[in-house]
Amino acid sequence: MEPRLSFVTLGVDDVERSRKFYEALGFKASAASVASSVAFFDAGGVVLALFGREALAKDASVPQGTAGFSGVALAHNVNSGAAVDQVLGEAVAAGAKLLKPGQKAFWGGYTGYFADPDGHIWEVAHNPFMPLDAHGRVTLPEPEA
Amino acid sequence: MEPRLSFVTLGVDDVERSRKFYEALGFKASAASVASSVAFFDAGGVVLALFGREALAKDASVPQGTAGFSGVALAHNVNSGAAVDQVLGEAVAAGAKLLKPGQKAFWGGYTGYFADPDGHIWEVAHNPFMPLDAHGRVTLPEPEA
Repeated sequence: MEPRLSFVTLGVDDVERSRKFYEALGFKASAASVASSVAFFDAGGVVLALFGREALAKDASVPQGTAGFSGVALAHNVNSGAAVDQVLGEAVAAGAKLLKPGQKAFWGGYTGYFADPDGHIWEVAHNPFMPLDAHGRVTLPEPEA
Repeated sequence: MEPRLSFVTLGVDDVERSRKFYEALGFKASAASVASSVAFFDAGGVVLALFGREALAKDASVPQGTAGFSGVALAHNVNSGAAVDQVLGEAVAAGAKLLKPGQKAFWGGYTGYFADPDGHIWEVAHNPFMPLDAHGRVTLPEPEA
């Protein structure tokens, strides 16, 4: 296995509603999307996909489970604390629930959280120790030799 | 908000156990990782992170919830059906639970699923309609004009 994450698929109750939410945030749906059943967004090297929650559980052969904290958090990193506050504001304007307003984190960054219409959580973060490259991708410290 | 996904953080019961699992699959932990509390892997343009499930819920200001299907699926795309079977075999050898053996999908691809030690689900997929570029990244059809 190569160390690559190709897709992150969010199980949602209403693909069209969720697609509109993400489009309001600036994501562009690929032509491969199918109106009421699936949406694909290029999210900078990884694909963000939306698919019915029941259909996703069935496809993976797992029980559907209950709503609530998924145990997974997505993050959108930006270059400043001011940008964190701006993105959190945009998300709320698009219909997100603010979980945690932007604030200084103990590790030296500045972050806040919102939930999408299905409760999937997004951190919006400025991490001064992991700068963004020219493509907006996080630069991680290399593995130790 | 720019259309970018920066991090996917998996809430786990034991960061060291999960780190070993992902290292066995070929992921390399960044030097920014902290042994028992957090691990970061460059996953090809997006960062895959491991963090305590309770700590993650607390950080996001959400109730911890219950285990079970998270409503989120990750995917690792490869260039052939044979590679799907190979990666599923590697995952099982590393301690994953096989959820669905590799099989033809109705949409024309070939996929299977495994669960990591905390039940986070991964699809391993060959999608002939979304080829991988030189960096191993999925090529999505462009948005319609």
